[in-house]
Amino acid sequence: MEPITLAHGSGGKKMVTLIEDLFLKKFNNHNLPQGNDFTSFEVSQKKLAISTDSYVISPLIFPGGDIGSLAVHGTVNDVCMSGAKPLYLSASFIIEEGLDLKILEKIVSSMAEASKKTGVPIITGDTKVVEKGKGDGLYINTTGIGEIPSNLNITGSNAKPGDKIIINGSIGDHGMAILSFREGLNFETTLQSDSAPLNSLIALMCEFFPQINCLRDPTRGGLAACLNELASQSKVAIKIFEENIPIKTEVHSACELLGLDPLNVANEGKLVTICPPEIADDLLKTMKSHPFGVNSQIIGEVLEGTDVFMETSFGGQRKISWPESEQLPRIC
Amino acid sequence: MEPITLAHGSGGKKMVTLIEDLFLKKFNNHNLPQGNDFTSFEVSQKKLAISTDSYVISPLIFPGGDIGSLAVHGTVNDVCMSGAKPLYLSASFIIEEGLDLKILEKIVSSMAEASKKTGVPIITGDTKVVEKGKGDGLYINTTGIGEIPSNLNITGSNAKPGDKIIINGSIGDHGMAILSFREGLNFETTLQSDSAPLNSLIALMCEFFPQINCLRDPTRGGLAACLNELASQSKVAIKIFEENIPIKTEVHSACELLGLDPLNVANEGKLVTICPPEIADDLLKTMKSHPFGVNSQIIGEVLEGTDVFMETSFGGQRKISWPESEQLPRIC
Repeated sequence: MEPITLAHGSGGKKMVTLIEDLFLKKFNNHNLPQGNDFTSFEVSQKKLAISTDSYVISPLIFPGGDIGSLAVHGTVNDVCMSGAKPLYLSASFIIEEGLDLKILEKIVSSMAEASKKTGVPIITGDTKVVEKGKGDGLYINTTGIGEIPSNLNITGSNAKPGDKIIINGSIGDHGMAILSFREGLNFETTLQSDSAPLNSLIALMCEFFPQINCLRDPTRGGLAACLNELASQSKVAIKIFEENIPIKTEVHSACELLGLDPLNVANEGKLVTICPPEIADDLLKTMKSHPFGVNSQIIGEVLEGTDVFMETSFGGQRKISWPESEQLPRIC
Repeated sequence: MEPITLAHGSGGKKMVTLIEDLFLKKFNNHNLPQGNDFTSFEVSQKKLAISTDSYVISPLIFPGGDIGSLAVHGTVNDVCMSGAKPLYLSASFIIEEGLDLKILEKIVSSMAEASKKTGVPIITGDTKVVEKGKGDGLYINTTGIGEIPSNLNITGSNAKPGDKIIINGSIGDHGMAILSFREGLNFETTLQSDSAPLNSLIALMCEFFPQINCLRDPTRGGLAACLNELASQSKVAIKIFEENIPIKTEVHSACELLGLDPLNVANEGKLVTICPPEIADDLLKTMKSHPFGVNSQIIGEVLEGTDVFMETSFGGQRKISWPESEQLPRIC
């Protein structure tokens, strides 16, 4: 099959053909084929949320997903961490000359499928091609727009002493799946990325519990970075309980083998929520009723102070710091 | 000065420092420092426009601009080709390991200055670092959001036979500036990119002439691609007059020397507008009153049919085709 050439990104006939035959066909929706460099759309709420991410994950296709589905899930998740209903995505491709068109097609198809499943259409885009050796196959940027219901006020600075902290399932799956696949490590079971769109889970949570104070997805830097961010933004301390944190056995083993702390490993289908203590049990029950929340757990609580620390399974305490140095490059 | 390392993109302490000490300081605005992965904002119109572009221009700094200012101007321009008032930008950086932090600072400063001058703040962002040899210094994605006034209906499919076609100044400046700088060609005068934000010119045009049918910026593929796109979307023919098309002498000479057609060369501060014939002269006068429209010209008209063609200075006619093959890679 034809490889991508610089002409596919130069604004001429080849680029138009690529856009019409691949992108427009796969991303097919009524907003997309307007043929302009912009796309127009209507909103019904005044308060919007925007988020952007460039995906540079290596390899492009991995157990549990690929850069295309990840670019949809990741940005949809960031937008809805405001409590917003994600409306639309933009998608921008930086393709390395020589990429097999078949691989591009496979990834664009997967992206289109993820967009359809999450109900968030891709309505505008851009294609650039760079010379061989100036990229790594494919980088994708997605930017998402959503509407924030007027009864919500969810932000990282809203955690209050006494609040409970809930996570919707096991940590470290994404990072360890990428790392072990990339390094050719063989474990008894194949580790799978947890890459998933969290918009329907969050819509359910926010419909019944608009009192939720914080939502955040523990991606790069893992749960440790996520909790440190929240503690720092809200000017509070956070205490988590090691025995309550869900970790799959195979992730635990892989981390031990490689000397990694699962608290620092990236997730792509997880959220941390902080809520007033009086709604915590009911919120947990609601989360458990959703396919992406079955393994939800209350993992800790907010205290006065400034640090993040963990009560270990042996009854000790250790400080959970910001991950300092490079652990896993290019996992998203 | 310290070079960028993979740790600057890994979600840890180094990334937080880079974001706080560089991006937040330079892009300083009241929306940005919310500390979340999303940013929320309010709109007052129902109809919005969105546009995205990844900038991969080489070299990063060139006569008349750099990748930072270009990433602001380019996306602001795409958004306002809908007649919209651009409100906000997102900015996402893919940095190659080893990039000098000084160069990154220079580009981010230029981007911040461009954002301030155009009045379109950067309110959310993302930073990724890829290994040496997997990028080319820096790629920047910007995505823009704007509000479309309810009295406008500007789209590429609105051109009607009889309409007049106006351009706001000379063509080919950007592409020839990049090419001659990149190839080390010396002309008598230094060619400068025309990179400029067109939002205030467009706001002026749309305020007094809401009847405008089309707006488009002739970027990649130049005026030839732009007019072919408009003719194809509107299902009309377009006729332009060679002697009316503004081209600077030095751009003309450089194109002749290199065997390039200035109609195919990219612009970054130009717009083509198509309007009903009865407002063309007054619209032209209004455009000429704006600093970015001083050299505006009526360059042609819309006819029934399907082709784009040019009446040459010698009275002949030639078909203006889509640029077919790669001319100038990585000029935006």
